Amino acid sequence: MARHIIPADARTWVEGAQETDFPIQNIPFGTAKLPDREEGLVAAIGNQVVVLQELLEAGLIDESTYPALNGFYDLPDGSLTDLRRRVAEILDIHNDSLRDDKRLRRKALIPMSEVQMQVPIPPASFVDFYSGIHHASNVGRMFRPDMAPLLPNYRHLPVGYNGRANTVVVSGEKVIRPKGQTMGKDAEAPEFGPCRELDFELEMGYYIGEGQPMGRRITCKAAEDHILGLVLCNDWSARDLQRWEYQPLGPFLAKSFATQISPWVVTLDALDPFRIEGMEQDPPVLHHIRRQGLQHFNIELEVLLQTPAMASPQVIARSNTKHLYWSMSQQIAHQTSNGTPIEFGDLMASGTISGPEPHERGSLLELSWRGAEPLKVGEETRTFLEDGDVVILKGYAQGDGFRIGFGECRGEVAPAV
Amino acid sequence: MARHIIPADARTWVEGAQETDFPIQNIPFGTAKLPDREEGLVAAIGNQVVVLQELLEAGLIDESTYPALNGFYDLPDGSLTDLRRRVAEILDIHNDSLRDDKRLRRKALIPMSEVQMQVPIPPASFVDFYSGIHHASNVGRMFRPDMAPLLPNYRHLPVGYNGRANTVVVSGEKVIRPKGQTMGKDAEAPEFGPCRELDFELEMGYYIGEGQPMGRRITCKAAEDHILGLVLCNDWSARDLQRWEYQPLGPFLAKSFATQISPWVVTLDALDPFRIEGMEQDPPVLHHIRRQGLQHFNIELEVLLQTPAMASPQVIARSNTKHLYWSMSQQIAHQTSNGTPIEFGDLMASGTISGPEPHERGSLLELSWRGAEPLKVGEETRTFLEDGDVVILKGYAQGDGFRIGFGECRGEVAPAV
Repeated sequence: MARHIIPADARTWVEGAQETDFPIQNIPFGTAKLPDREEGLVAAIGNQVVVLQELLEAGLIDESTYPALNGFYDLPDGSLTDLRRRVAEILDIHNDSLRDDKRLRRKALIPMSEVQMQVPIPPASFVDFYSGIHHASNVGRMFRPDMAPLLPNYRHLPVGYNGRANTVVVSGEKVIRPKGQTMGKDAEAPEFGPCRELDFELEMGYYIGEGQPMGRRITCKAAEDHILGLVLCNDWSARDLQRWEYQPLGPFLAKSFATQISPWVVTLDALDPFRIEGMEQDPPVLHHIRRQGLQHFNIELEVLLQTPAMASPQVIARSNTKHLYWSMSQQIAHQTSNGTPIEFGDLMASGTISGPEPHERGSLLELSWRGAEPLKVGEETRTFLEDGDVVILKGYAQGDGFRIGFGECRGEVAPAV
Repeated sequence: MARHIIPADARTWVEGAQETDFPIQNIPFGTAKLPDREEGLVAAIGNQVVVLQELLEAGLIDESTYPALNGFYDLPDGSLTDLRRRVAEILDIHNDSLRDDKRLRRKALIPMSEVQMQVPIPPASFVDFYSGIHHASNVGRMFRPDMAPLLPNYRHLPVGYNGRANTVVVSGEKVIRPKGQTMGKDAEAPEFGPCRELDFELEMGYYIGEGQPMGRRITCKAAEDHILGLVLCNDWSARDLQRWEYQPLGPFLAKSFATQISPWVVTLDALDPFRIEGMEQDPPVLHHIRRQGLQHFNIELEVLLQTPAMASPQVIARSNTKHLYWSMSQQIAHQTSNGTPIEFGDLMASGTISGPEPHERGSLLELSWRGAEPLKVGEETRTFLEDGDVVILKGYAQGDGFRIGFGECRGEVAPAV
């Protein structure tokens, strides 16, 4: 697929856009609840959302290609490339079609603060991988101290599991502390009650655009053609529930109460200039999941925490998608290697992305080393999350004079009910 | 919910129906591709399907309650109770409304052989439990011979995991042998190729009718109100893929290539007379998932195998849903205990249902004891399935002079592609 890259020196007539997460080089897409419409497909530029149905109705977008643009499901081929190219033209500083049409601008350009962003696409399915090698190693060191940190399969295939799709929520929603069954360390019987070890996980998610029917395999080379775009993902986790439930079939209720994503789907077109080799894979992996070219990305990640006592959030971890052992392409090639179909709207996520250093750990489990080294935040400490704590994920690829940002994925912990 | 039980002495005017899986006491529902319609909601009686949209259009079903009946999604409250009650009235031997209307009968009553049954509802999600205690014990004995057969959590919560919903196929579809990554016992590196240890799993599945929004818990007492009905389920499994991939996050590609279900949704109304206590739960389980009354069922199960060399299928295992340690109600109460919503069309399954005896084992893995005791079938033996093998699951509750049958769940193994 030919990627559309908007030059680094391009500028938009939307004021201040270049200093935000959403300069003209980015143009991510989302689904918004709008003041005067139920829901609409929107693009982000600076601090504004662009209502695409309005541009369509005004004749600025070709209606023979797009009969409607009320949601991602209106994309004829499950790809954002052509639409993004056209939106970039309209927003370009030299294009007067929308810039000089005051009346249309009032309808089509709305301050972000006035819209409520939704889950971009209610996921058809949710698959979570485990491709952050430092996270997997840390977990191994904590829970299996007498063994090699990584299990034997780790470097041979992208380990993953099916999650729950209908608990995916968007940034801004409160996350209710789940209840569940736990077994105390020296207890004789389990008990049922509010989770005591609530945690976040710093992940990168991505949506599938064009699907693939059952019985066929997607190659590592072709896999990116099926990616609609990327979102930040906080895979909220109840560690105490997980410890008790997960043998032998994997995590279930410990992960299914909420998975939170950022609202803006950032395209591979926007991220194309930030491709990197990725870490060496040793031993070499089998042919059908071997990387083809630059299929990793250099995206900076941050986790911020704000407790009720703090005036503003504090960065508690920094990481980067370069710490992923397996690329999205490899994950897709692996997942379809048994003939599993993928569909428009499938959501996949990377697994927790930790770096090698202590301040690069992508979960509280790791940051507090399972409670042994409580994390200092402001005047307080945390081993796990407390009610009222706000967790914010951020991400961006740094260009020359602009950044391709993801906005944020923000969730506040609400008490158990 | 008040169950509607059709008396054991009721009879239908549809000839021969009482000798089949689908007497008037049953009346299960399904989705059929019909000769002159794309798709329709149908009921089964004897060897005929009843096209409900035809009865509706003829005025035999109240259109103020059911504006349309083309699929399960047309049920106003996600329940089959009222509709089944009305269909039973129409099919009753003393009711002449359809019986004596030759023209309507031609449209509304079609031989099963002339319709193609579909997946009843494309599942919104698929969750598979592990509630067959003899199966779980057998797996423990085989794979962890030095430990207690059951893991510590087994008797405290219904272990389960999320499966892949979009590979659920209906009885009659061929199942393509999946490819995947496996690690030979003494191999130095894994390889990619066709699965060598293809297996079936004898399970009982059930659909959710009325959903429940996020953040609320369903009690064990109320759980059955959310069950639309039951289907047989063959959770096809690739044992060699599973062994290599499943640590630490559970089965993934080994289970996601195909899950097969029978086309007829058998209601709890039909199964109500076959309630049983179920096995004792010791130690007692926590209050929120404690059984309320008779929530298990006495349903006989059979697995038949026909190899290409055999003239007819042979029974290779007999089991019964009474061997489930956890009831459907307990599974639903557990699954929603963390606030996970359930939706109309969610599919759940029991896990493999083995009995305590060797001939009651619900998978080839167990029947051949991991290959150590190859199973004799006709003149041949099997450790795992070969191309061309046909696996058929059957199930029925035996009444006095009738049986509440499930029809069959049939799948033929096709070669890898």
